[in-house]
Amino acid sequence: MISIDINCDMGEGFGIYELGHDEELLAEVTSANIACGFHAGDPSVMRKTVQSALRHGVAIGAHPGFADLAGFGRRKLQLSPAEVQDLITYQIGALQAFVQQEGGILHHVKPHGALYNMAAVSAPLAEAIAGAIADLDRSLILYGLSGSELVRAGHAAGLKVASEVFADRTYQADGTLTPRTRADALLHDASQAAAQIIHLLNTGTVRATDGTIVTIEADTVCIHGDGVHAVDFARELKRCLLSEGIALAAI
Amino acid sequence: MISIDINCDMGEGFGIYELGHDEELLAEVTSANIACGFHAGDPSVMRKTVQSALRHGVAIGAHPGFADLAGFGRRKLQLSPAEVQDLITYQIGALQAFVQQEGGILHHVKPHGALYNMAAVSAPLAEAIAGAIADLDRSLILYGLSGSELVRAGHAAGLKVASEVFADRTYQADGTLTPRTRADALLHDASQAAAQIIHLLNTGTVRATDGTIVTIEADTVCIHGDGVHAVDFARELKRCLLSEGIALAAI
Amino acid sequence: MISIDINCDMGEGFGIYELGHDEELLAEVTSANIACGFHAGDPSVMRKTVQSALRHGVAIGAHPGFADLAGFGRRKLQLSPAEVQDLITYQIGALQAFVQQEGGILHHVKPHGALYNMAAVSAPLAEAIAGAIADLDRSLILYGLSGSELVRAGHAAGLKVASEVFADRTYQADGTLTPRTRADALLHDASQAAAQIIHLLNTGTVRATDGTIVTIEADTVCIHGDGVHAVDFARELKRCLLSEGIALAAI
Amino acid sequence: MISIDINCDMGEGFGIYELGHDEELLAEVTSANIACGFHAGDPSVMRKTVQSALRHGVAIGAHPGFADLAGFGRRKLQLSPAEVQDLITYQIGALQAFVQQEGGILHHVKPHGALYNMAAVSAPLAEAIAGAIADLDRSLILYGLSGSELVRAGHAAGLKVASEVFADRTYQADGTLTPRTRADALLHDASQAAAQIIHLLNTGTVRATDGTIVTIEADTVCIHGDGVHAVDFARELKRCLLSEGIALAAI
Repeated sequence: MISIDINCDMGEGFGIYELGHDEELLAEVTSANIACGFHAGDPSVMRKTVQSALRHGVAIGAHPGFADLAGFGRRKLQLSPAEVQDLITYQIGALQAFVQQEGGILHHVKPHGALYNMAAVSAPLAEAIAGAIADLDRSLILYGLSGSELVRAGHAAGLKVASEVFADRTYQADGTLTPRTRADALLHDASQAAAQIIHLLNTGTVRATDGTIVTIEADTVCIHGDGVHAVDFARELKRCLLSEGIALAAI
Repeated sequence: MISIDINCDMGEGFGIYELGHDEELLAEVTSANIACGFHAGDPSVMRKTVQSALRHGVAIGAHPGFADLAGFGRRKLQLSPAEVQDLITYQIGALQAFVQQEGGILHHVKPHGALYNMAAVSAPLAEAIAGAIADLDRSLILYGLSGSELVRAGHAAGLKVASEVFADRTYQADGTLTPRTRADALLHDASQAAAQIIHLLNTGTVRATDGTIVTIEADTVCIHGDGVHAVDFARELKRCLLSEGIALAAI
Repeated sequence: MISIDINCDMGEGFGIYELGHDEELLAEVTSANIACGFHAGDPSVMRKTVQSALRHGVAIGAHPGFADLAGFGRRKLQLSPAEVQDLITYQIGALQAFVQQEGGILHHVKPHGALYNMAAVSAPLAEAIAGAIADLDRSLILYGLSGSELVRAGHAAGLKVASEVFADRTYQADGTLTPRTRADALLHDASQAAAQIIHLLNTGTVRATDGTIVTIEADTVCIHGDGVHAVDFARELKRCLLSEGIALAAI
Repeated sequence: MISIDINCDMGEGFGIYELGHDEELLAEVTSANIACGFHAGDPSVMRKTVQSALRHGVAIGAHPGFADLAGFGRRKLQLSPAEVQDLITYQIGALQAFVQQEGGILHHVKPHGALYNMAAVSAPLAEAIAGAIADLDRSLILYGLSGSELVRAGHAAGLKVASEVFADRTYQADGTLTPRTRADALLHDASQAAAQIIHLLNTGTVRATDGTIVTIEADTVCIHGDGVHAVDFARELKRCLLSEGIALAAI
């Protein structure tokens, strides 16, 4: 039986500020990437989100990002590989403490936002991230953009790696995501998204925006937790996948 | 043979800013309380300080404080016990990750500044701190002000606790530290400080500023890492203690 | 014709985080207290909020708070009067720059949250705030809790002062607000709130929770911008006041 | 009589952390660029530095930077021009409040670190900065790297602009600074630095590292305030310039 992991970023509130629909989405996904207090999240939000994820039996990942709350970790910040290694280590450790206290086990690490994107194309940053994880706990799974430097660095560091695809994004002929600036970058419909995933799981390929068939590895599918339709999208996607006989399970 | 631990706050730089004389003091002390990025310290400073402490064979403690870099964690901030529990958990976890990566073992936890002082007199805050540590790792030793609520809460939580005295502070008849606003609050001379500690270790008592003999528990002695004379003070204190046949060792 | 100012805290988002119903509330109030980037708000939110307030013809005030975004400025932080003076100066200056660029004039200053509450009862903090404003711009009006140290300090500093009452709060026999821990602390109904204000404007008194008639100064009425019913409450309050022939205008 | 301005970054401490030799350097320079609380500086440091600058009769400039205290504003952060405009406005306003309270007049604005470097080569960022200043106060002088986009944008915005050169840096044949990664990037000797400035003031040119004579505009010379030799360098530079009959004065 074919199985796939559905992951979603969680715990992105801060202090009085709320964001996303964590409680409802935890009922739909198999993995939660929990913000670690730098680009979003604070110690109390982290604990609450860990507790919710455990209650829902969802695998818990650390979701470290740049120390840029004002920019939600989405703005590129030029750090050295050594700084990134320390940044990642700090945030994973912080989340791990809550997971340990609440009786869970940390399952994976997925960098956030600009850090994720920069590590997808920069070997030194990718190696810094993979190295930090490998030095800390070799049982942690590294989630990285399918086909990216981060996936390569994870394998090189001897880590278990999950190649990530995005439920609502289209692909270009070279296998990279269609840039968001393009009109055809997004799949707005959950059934379309499900169809692309099902095709991918069955054939190992997606049809790019120009019709080319490209090979993509896919171990986990990311859905977005923000936006008014996030919960509806997640539910419909899950329904479509299950109805095609695809099992949903963390890696 | 009588033995005592000498601890000092370390890793209190941040970014471009340097503070203290860590490298020199690590040669004199037996325990280092390493700042965890909230009142001072950053991920890179934390790693570097952990590495130095391990190189010197000094026991490593987490030194969590309020999220108040501008006030160096010395300004009282009114947090709920639940907030303190999460704050402590986060910071210990972050430091633990560096210690683990560098091949060491986290030895103790000592709250910093205003948090230390507030937890000394507030049972709910003390219980929040002790609870966070006990939930995380029961092998961690809690360092708290001798005779304080924090020490009591640590015992109640089933933790190993170290009662802390201050090398350069005098005591009042009720066993509390003479407030810094008083002219006789400080022992400026390392040999005086050593004499007080030696007397304490031999008799379990100190002579208060009014001459009263008061009973004080002392498992660890705190010395200050800032100030121009910090290193000289530490060296002279160590020399005096060793010359009296007192062994210096972490708990 | 009797006239009253209705003020509301605004611009309390931060980065990706949104809070409150500024655009709708600006249609109902006569003064906006705009967060200045410490307890809430960021430079871009500040500019946007200043622009909206000017578009609605609402008087703009600076709403400085503690540098505690995680606690939304609601947690007491023990600062010295000199630190408070500098904190206030910084934040007023920052907001003033946006107001100036957008072609407006800064109208008032109202401290936020824990700083407001601490300054209500601490003469040194109240004097620090009033002093900072007086040193900066004597045309700024200081908004403070009616009957508080802050109002007294404002008068003593030669400032124009607005005594503030809260639309949805009841009073005790001594003229202070009923603590929120008491069941009868809040007026949940806008018409009740309006009745209390109308009585206050006509008689200079309110009926305390125990029935005592107490004298209260009221130049401005604060309504809350958060909560699901904030906009409805504001509209109904405004309707009631206008229907009683009370004019609504900034001071 | 030929005259030149010597400027230096100041007020770069934060909380307990001290940096630089402000008091001594204020005796040597004619302009101070004061950090505004984002990359360095805090409200209390800002007031103290403004007071010192006024006492020394040194012209005061705002020195805004990225909100990256951990990186001292030296790490590139990808902000939109609108975000930069708001960032600049906020920080100038904050400093202006202290200057106004202390009875001075804000004289200039010089962006810091990565923001300065990015604005030197990015027209949109340069225009955002120049626009923010022009919208706020047209009497403010914009300090920018000689020959840069920032200088061009300042002129285009109708601002008075000061072209900045660096006392201790060499130039390349194309008129740009020799990158710090090159061995010949720095002039270590104050007399060499003075000779280059004197030559520049007399001829409007410098001799590049390859011997080429290049034309450079120079209205102000930046010296560095950090490093153990900063004060000695400043004193010697000043002595050399004065001995050649060059007057030192703010613009």
